[in-house]
Amino acid sequence: MTTNELKSKIESLASMQIGMQGKDFLLTWERSDDEIRAAFLVAEILRGMRQNNLSPRVWDSGLAVSIFKDNSTRTRFSFASACNLLGLAVQDFDEKKSQIAHGETVRETATMISFLTEAIGIRDDMYLGEGDRFQREVGRALDDAVRDGVLPARPAIVNLQSDIDHPTQSMADLLHLVNHFGGVERLAGKKIAMTWAYSPSYGKPLSVPQGVIGLATRFGMEVTLAHPEGYSLIPDTLEVAKRNAAASGGSFTVTASMEEAFQDADIVYPKSWAPFSVMQERTRLLQRGDESGLAALEKQCLANNAKFQSWECSEEMMGLTKQGSGLYMHCLPADISGVSCREGEVAASVFDRYRSATYREAGYKPYIIAAMILLARLADPAKELERMVKRGSQRGLA
Amino acid sequence: MTTNELKSKIESLASMQIGMQGKDFLLTWERSDDEIRAAFLVAEILRGMRQNNLSPRVWDSGLAVSIFKDNSTRTRFSFASACNLLGLAVQDFDEKKSQIAHGETVRETATMISFLTEAIGIRDDMYLGEGDRFQREVGRALDDAVRDGVLPARPAIVNLQSDIDHPTQSMADLLHLVNHFGGVERLAGKKIAMTWAYSPSYGKPLSVPQGVIGLATRFGMEVTLAHPEGYSLIPDTLEVAKRNAAASGGSFTVTASMEEAFQDADIVYPKSWAPFSVMQERTRLLQRGDESGLAALEKQCLANNAKFQSWECSEEMMGLTKQGSGLYMHCLPADISGVSCREGEVAASVFDRYRSATYREAGYKPYIIAAMILLARLADPAKELERMVKRGSQRGLA
Amino acid sequence: MTTNELKSKIESLASMQIGMQGKDFLLTWERSDDEIRAAFLVAEILRGMRQNNLSPRVWDSGLAVSIFKDNSTRTRFSFASACNLLGLAVQDFDEKKSQIAHGETVRETATMISFLTEAIGIRDDMYLGEGDRFQREVGRALDDAVRDGVLPARPAIVNLQSDIDHPTQSMADLLHLVNHFGGVERLAGKKIAMTWAYSPSYGKPLSVPQGVIGLATRFGMEVTLAHPEGYSLIPDTLEVAKRNAAASGGSFTVTASMEEAFQDADIVYPKSWAPFSVMQERTRLLQRGDESGLAALEKQCLANNAKFQSWECSEEMMGLTKQGSGLYMHCLPADISGVSCREGEVAASVFDRYRSATYREAGYKPYIIAAMILLARLADPAKELERMVKRGSQRGLA
Repeated sequence: MTTNELKSKIESLASMQIGMQGKDFLLTWERSDDEIRAAFLVAEILRGMRQNNLSPRVWDSGLAVSIFKDNSTRTRFSFASACNLLGLAVQDFDEKKSQIAHGETVRETATMISFLTEAIGIRDDMYLGEGDRFQREVGRALDDAVRDGVLPARPAIVNLQSDIDHPTQSMADLLHLVNHFGGVERLAGKKIAMTWAYSPSYGKPLSVPQGVIGLATRFGMEVTLAHPEGYSLIPDTLEVAKRNAAASGGSFTVTASMEEAFQDADIVYPKSWAPFSVMQERTRLLQRGDESGLAALEKQCLANNAKFQSWECSEEMMGLTKQGSGLYMHCLPADISGVSCREGEVAASVFDRYRSATYREAGYKPYIIAAMILLARLADPAKELERMVKRGSQRGLA
Repeated sequence: MTTNELKSKIESLASMQIGMQGKDFLLTWERSDDEIRAAFLVAEILRGMRQNNLSPRVWDSGLAVSIFKDNSTRTRFSFASACNLLGLAVQDFDEKKSQIAHGETVRETATMISFLTEAIGIRDDMYLGEGDRFQREVGRALDDAVRDGVLPARPAIVNLQSDIDHPTQSMADLLHLVNHFGGVERLAGKKIAMTWAYSPSYGKPLSVPQGVIGLATRFGMEVTLAHPEGYSLIPDTLEVAKRNAAASGGSFTVTASMEEAFQDADIVYPKSWAPFSVMQERTRLLQRGDESGLAALEKQCLANNAKFQSWECSEEMMGLTKQGSGLYMHCLPADISGVSCREGEVAASVFDRYRSATYREAGYKPYIIAAMILLARLADPAKELERMVKRGSQRGLA
Repeated sequence: MTTNELKSKIESLASMQIGMQGKDFLLTWERSDDEIRAAFLVAEILRGMRQNNLSPRVWDSGLAVSIFKDNSTRTRFSFASACNLLGLAVQDFDEKKSQIAHGETVRETATMISFLTEAIGIRDDMYLGEGDRFQREVGRALDDAVRDGVLPARPAIVNLQSDIDHPTQSMADLLHLVNHFGGVERLAGKKIAMTWAYSPSYGKPLSVPQGVIGLATRFGMEVTLAHPEGYSLIPDTLEVAKRNAAASGGSFTVTASMEEAFQDADIVYPKSWAPFSVMQERTRLLQRGDESGLAALEKQCLANNAKFQSWECSEEMMGLTKQGSGLYMHCLPADISGVSCREGEVAASVFDRYRSATYREAGYKPYIIAAMILLARLADPAKELERMVKRGSQRGLA
């Protein structure tokens, strides 16, 4: 990216109607089209600054707190990179060291970790009905603390995966498509197949497919969701996708055939997830701490999954895509047949061909997260980015 | 805080007789009155700089090591925030990953973690007779290493809670009072009740009440310590409080009646702790690894605690305070009746009314810790703070 | 170190033929003599800058990732200090939180943690045949990712201990000798005894003795490796030492007598390690997860070790060294007789006399690691160091 391209992107940003300051990025469908595009633009500007060895450091000091209620490598490092890029030091809130539950505890803990904190990233995707609720509870506690003069600033909350949405993933996915196809306006009319795929594991969250259908439908794309009978998502998210498609001039279709979804698709996103009803049952069992119930559920689910081993992104399936060369996407790690498992989501030869592409897809995440933080914290992001580009501080001597 | 107020505070600091450089902040009663006031002043200057978006960054690089032998959220984040504010990166010394015991091991480990370290925060409050001893042992090892030319600088040790004192807590508590009542000179004559309160747990450290009576008695306050028979503190700390009260023109009284302590109190600090004798026994059992002995002790103590369920900071008790509106304090988390437990230290309605106040109380801790580090490391803190204010570097663009 | 000395060292560096940019520091014997000396020089320049309160900060932001497959205090803090000194934030890759195995997983994980990463430190010394292999596998993954445009820069890998070499230790050890004897050219002809010593533990890695004989033989030193029958090292590393000694004009001798090794030695490095054959067997058992086999092997080894309790660095043994005052070295922690164990590697009185020296030895490690990172990442390290010295940014106000 040349510095002229950088400047032109900043000018585009300046012309947008956005009001994201002070607002948490929890669900993409709570943000306007301009705001989504602004997040893409800021991410691209930050990536361009990195290419030009320009420092986008906004803070001289300040903490960024990460709360991971589930394991994570990719998102953990993306959050750490994003915060570090902006000048923040990451402090993990370790669930094992200090518990947070609900009510008083959440209210208090949220405040106690925020006295000099600028951003809080939360992954809470284990229990249906819990993750998003928890993030909002933290947000309200922070609002109260700012209102009462307890906190000097309101940290931005970034949803690093909830039970409903996974916006840092879906935004990175879409930015990958924007760059792959050469512009956000080129996405209209493209067919994307978000499809279930077989995996010898169970209990994978629904937030990735939900996030993808909720976001891809914003750009006039032809979005097909495919899964075997019974592997449905949270009903509300299907409504979101329908509404979005209608508004954007695209379409949203649900099918029980992987072949139908792949047919003439420009993009395929084959990925395993657990059925909504199983996640509901699993949530109940986890909350009760019912170990034997969980084991029985897992066994039953794996048996059910096994009926759908044919849902593999094979070379034959890829042959159905547009000119046989649709773009394969995955949030990683993929279950690769014969590599990470015997039978999995994707054939090894398909994955091999698209490995670099999936890595590049993941590479947008740090910039997307940094963009979300900047947009939530700065009154005039375009002006600040312009100032930082002009400032010309180098990111490194190297 | 206006920049003129900032400057005036820096001038006050410059006029003080302090000699804290190179000295660890382990017990407040090892520091002179001027030194305590200097710590308050520096904390307030740093808070004022934060309000004015001025960076108090002292170091371009350097580590701050945290050693937590007990769980912690509040103090961990306060230490992290303080160090980050000054430009230091926090590196946790994880007890589970690498053990430190006594003697050779302490001497060596203290040195090995300090080659480029500017501050070390230690929480070691589990064993009576151990925490303070350990902190001093680390200090001597560092002294030796500096003397022998092994270390280029002597890191400052900050007591993040020992078996004897909890100075970052008590100093934050007192700074809260200074701001609440409008000046350190306004504290004289105020009545503060540091009282035991019922909690359905056992084994809570003594360092908070010990720290509070050891510090509040420095300012001419009328300090009352109240607890049921048998719930006494380390005898030496009572002597400290007596001496301090005599010197400052205040008073120090011990009573076995919560009502007496609350009567006409300007401030109440109701909090559970374990009896000194139980902590001694517990220390012996922990050191022997006597699991069944510990279980028996816990059972016996909880049974004993249960006799004193009436020691609750109820609305009735609050009604006894000065004009019924004494200030409620707590180091958090409080055991709130009907919220975090069935019967606890404080009634829910009382806590609700003072929640924000207790959060604000906690909010002074990062600045107190940063002040302790600055005072221990800088030859002329007033001059450096003046230079930093003049420098005018912004903490953040936002 | 005066700034003139600093400048003169930078000039020496500028005159050297080195090509370390983009190359990982995995085995000292993969680096040329000039490159080894360049690493010493850069470490000394960085240490001198520290003494003169000059900041060697190269990066405004960037991550340094640590991957520790074995516990560590010394190396963990050295890596953290080194990275912090250069401006990088350390992010631990926690094996317990996220597994990395081989093949696809390594390739993917290496990339996912590197989008904004400048250096990766890896300790993997548990399994023979694994540690070095793993580090190279990570390196190839990063090369691929850079080639495919996935990563904007190639992070430097620093070997923080593998099954073969422990270059950050051996380089710090040798830099200690360079300073002790007053120059790298003074090392020629000095006799160093790298000897096995008794310890009541088993399974200590071979990488320290292997690293020391592989590096000390580069400087024309008379290197003696001494160990009881059966306690041999990886055969290839003996070949490396022989070749190096021949090329440098020194010598390399293996003996089964501690006395012979100590006789007239200028330097002694007595340290326990497990026999090569035992480590091979242990690796097989660990890979199979054979707990009872491991217990049996440990028992048998400890019994075997016990036959060699006389291999202690006693005062009598020290009396054999050059003028009875040879330099004692250790990578720490040492097993000190009567202190950390009943019978150990070294007599308490010997260790006492050399304690400070061993601490100083360890103190070079942060600078060595920082030097390795700079040399791997900068196109013209001498020029950048010159620029940083001229820039004159202070490391701290203090």
